Amino acid sequence: MASAQQAVGPGTSTPAPPPSPRGGDDAPREVDVLVVGGGSAAETAGPRAAAAGLRVVVVEGDLVGGQCPFWACVPSKALLLAAHAHRAAGDEDHAAAWQVAVDRRREATADRDDSGKAEGLAEAGVELLRGWASLERSPGGGGLAHVRRGGPSPEEPGELVETLRWRTLVVATGSEPAVPPVDGLDAVEGTWTSDEALSSDHLPTSLLVLGGGAVGCELAQVYASFGVRTTLVETAPRLLAAENPSVGEAVEASLRAAGVDVRTGVTARRASSGGDGVVLDLDDGARVEGERLLVASGRKPRLQCVDGLGLDVTDAGALATDVRYRALAGGTPLDDVFAVGDVNGRAPYTHGANYQARVVADALLGSPRDGDETGMPRAVYVEPPVLATGMSAEAAREAGHDVVTASQASHDTGRAHVERYDGPGTVELVVDARTGVLLGASAVGPEADSWGGELVLAVRGRLDVELLAEVVHPFPAWGELLLPAVEDARDQVRARRGEGPRPTQGAAAPAHTA
Amino acid sequence: MASAQQAVGPGTSTPAPPPSPRGGDDAPREVDVLVVGGGSAAETAGPRAAAAGLRVVVVEGDLVGGQCPFWACVPSKALLLAAHAHRAAGDEDHAAAWQVAVDRRREATADRDDSGKAEGLAEAGVELLRGWASLERSPGGGGLAHVRRGGPSPEEPGELVETLRWRTLVVATGSEPAVPPVDGLDAVEGTWTSDEALSSDHLPTSLLVLGGGAVGCELAQVYASFGVRTTLVETAPRLLAAENPSVGEAVEASLRAAGVDVRTGVTARRASSGGDGVVLDLDDGARVEGERLLVASGRKPRLQCVDGLGLDVTDAGALATDVRYRALAGGTPLDDVFAVGDVNGRAPYTHGANYQARVVADALLGSPRDGDETGMPRAVYVEPPVLATGMSAEAAREAGHDVVTASQASHDTGRAHVERYDGPGTVELVVDARTGVLLGASAVGPEADSWGGELVLAVRGRLDVELLAEVVHPFPAWGELLLPAVEDARDQVRARRGEGPRPTQGAAAPAHTA
Repeated sequence: MASAQQAVGPGTSTPAPPPSPRGGDDAPREVDVLVVGGGSAAETAGPRAAAAGLRVVVVEGDLVGGQCPFWACVPSKALLLAAHAHRAAGDEDHAAAWQVAVDRRREATADRDDSGKAEGLAEAGVELLRGWASLERSPGGGGLAHVRRGGPSPEEPGELVETLRWRTLVVATGSEPAVPPVDGLDAVEGTWTSDEALSSDHLPTSLLVLGGGAVGCELAQVYASFGVRTTLVETAPRLLAAENPSVGEAVEASLRAAGVDVRTGVTARRASSGGDGVVLDLDDGARVEGERLLVASGRKPRLQCVDGLGLDVTDAGALATDVRYRALAGGTPLDDVFAVGDVNGRAPYTHGANYQARVVADALLGSPRDGDETGMPRAVYVEPPVLATGMSAEAAREAGHDVVTASQASHDTGRAHVERYDGPGTVELVVDARTGVLLGASAVGPEADSWGGELVLAVRGRLDVELLAEVVHPFPAWGELLLPAVEDARDQVRARRGEGPRPTQGAAAPAHTA
Repeated sequence: MASAQQAVGPGTSTPAPPPSPRGGDDAPREVDVLVVGGGSAAETAGPRAAAAGLRVVVVEGDLVGGQCPFWACVPSKALLLAAHAHRAAGDEDHAAAWQVAVDRRREATADRDDSGKAEGLAEAGVELLRGWASLERSPGGGGLAHVRRGGPSPEEPGELVETLRWRTLVVATGSEPAVPPVDGLDAVEGTWTSDEALSSDHLPTSLLVLGGGAVGCELAQVYASFGVRTTLVETAPRLLAAENPSVGEAVEASLRAAGVDVRTGVTARRASSGGDGVVLDLDDGARVEGERLLVASGRKPRLQCVDGLGLDVTDAGALATDVRYRALAGGTPLDDVFAVGDVNGRAPYTHGANYQARVVADALLGSPRDGDETGMPRAVYVEPPVLATGMSAEAAREAGHDVVTASQASHDTGRAHVERYDGPGTVELVVDARTGVLLGASAVGPEADSWGGELVLAVRGRLDVELLAEVVHPFPAWGELLLPAVEDARDQVRARRGEGPRPTQGAAAPAHTA
């Protein structure tokens, strides 16, 4: 194991030893569980399966740990924290602060050295094969994996490391940035994906951000905080358009406060070189430019290595799965092929991959069960942060629910008073009018990624507003803003039931500020 | 109403006008609800009752708003926030930082001007009478309240403002600092209660703190943060002794890091003047001294104004109540006398008073129901903060539960990694081994007062660890530390049921740090 790791690991130049004795004869080595892709899902499912005595092999040709620790959440959060601290300090020396941020990013990502991650797998009894797998299914179940060095290109397959026979396959190959159809985008120099934006040592003087989703919002706030003239372009009428409107409004206010030129409801028609570096022509006739253009318009599942498996692919380009995360072939779930994480498109977050991996690990251990992603949280770590869970009001109505909504601003709380906080902050609840069950919620405000956890539990637990209205928050915690919204929703539900609203709404706001 | 307010309000010296026409004849004015004590409970119950059309009068001889906004939570939190910022900045100029803190405290407490609070009641349709009430019950139900200017002393009753006839009485008179039986304590100069510690402009050079509960811990951290040589003495073997041990250990670490000399398991035997100002002789033979001695050893309910009502008093000196917060007389609940907030000793927190007031308001509006304080949170705003809910492990065992516990440290989370946080942080779960229901939990760590809200909901909702293990936290939120503890507890419960633990414990820790 160790020799195979060293031989094909990135950053080593010694040639691979011959794969014998394992691959030295005609019979491929058999493994119980083969996980293709060494990211979060592998790190969660692999150790659980190995701890139960299963032989588990993870194949990864890039960094063990996947996107999150090296190219996504972790460097992003490190830069965001540094950016928030820099803005809060009111310091004008952007270059020095950027250097601090880069140092923190490097430290947080361990300079993209994944040896600690590899050791973690080894300590958990999971074998790591560094390389790229091409896969086959066998008629009687299970299949083969040909693990090769070099990139995943089918045109130039690398040297064979080993062929394995797997009983159960877990496809966890993740996703990669998607490029939107903008004329000329391929031809211009200076475009970034989040990879470059999260690894650049260079602080550009200006930045265009194409896309107002989580990544676009976070990175726009990061760069603007260090004095970069930042313009964000989003086609939808607001930022984070899939969430309740109050979310996008709050984040837009935060981005504007950090100096971002936010342009929503406009579409980039053409990209060209010029001006500061890259020029975008927008469909409202405006022209914006930046030294760099960050393309942050979504990601697409990585399907290269499963080409030979005959698996079903959704319209969105993800591997189709059932509620147990079994891959489908011809519409039928396969008992021996699972697909978890970004590659199945269901919950493309690190914590989504981890959840699915826990469900699959239970199946591997003989306790198959359905996954239940009700309440799966969606966080955006701008300052103040966003946490959303369950359905937006619009999504709930589209799903056929009769919906009542209620909201509350954080600045009416005792905490906002003592912290002198008057920035964006609101909670919005989406409640089934008939049952009173919380279908979804969005939270924006200081520590919302923390106090919003209660809303995730409520949605996941299908709890109703009668119970939620009985939950007490300590004075003066941020969570106190929940009560007025919950009581408002409860009274609306009672009124729909003909129980008559109790006249408590107006009096429900925490009244403990001096 | 306005003239009565102005006439007897503190800070005005004009004589009271004659109380006519209201008190000018023999028949006292009738009110539906009389709330004695104008603190948090009055501010919650009063407006709700008034909104339903009830005639509500609040009698308050001191500041409207009660302790919280002027003498407790709010000035405390303002000082704590300033202290945490000062420590985080690593600034050595304590005097300047203290001045900033005092200014923030003044601003947060509105310089103890309660006119905004009084206006809030007026706008909600609640009449405020400034004065002190002495109370009688009438044989046929309801009773009289004689509202007088001046202090609550029965020896020197002030001038009569008005006599009212009430149908329902809500006693919400709060509490006041209790003084422990320490020899010589009465005689020494320089003792403080929390009132003085939260209103002093003077920064002493040294401070003794007697009591390691919430108030003692918070104020010790505040003063130590500004360079005050601070010694805390607590008789119990640890700080916050009613909570799970991990809480007191974490807070002790935080206090020591702020420079507090923490002495637990020792009792002050004698107080005398000398040394820096006050000297305490401890029962371990040690002698400690400080310019001031802060007595933070609890509070006692204020019962003066209910002397004439014949209400039952608990062994702890609180008004006895049933689960609807009806006061008891001779063991029988009275339908027309409620007691809420600190005076009933059940949940002596602002948020406890508010909760009870909401329950009583429902009763006043014709929908009586039982209060349910399961999960009532207990917060301590040291840095990092504490949030505890439900039963400690010890309390649960004493209550007859077969208990399993599980804990998890925050430094194993992705958030701690990206924030480079290695300070105290832990969650401890107390679970009924038979049902799997979460009976209690304690949380310490960054933003624990926010992410701990989820634990309050879980305890209040009597949710079990099977559900809690399905709740997903966003990466990298602080709440991710919950999963390993929840899975550990769940596996223990399953093992007790003979379902066999699944080998997930070791693999459950979030594994997404580089």
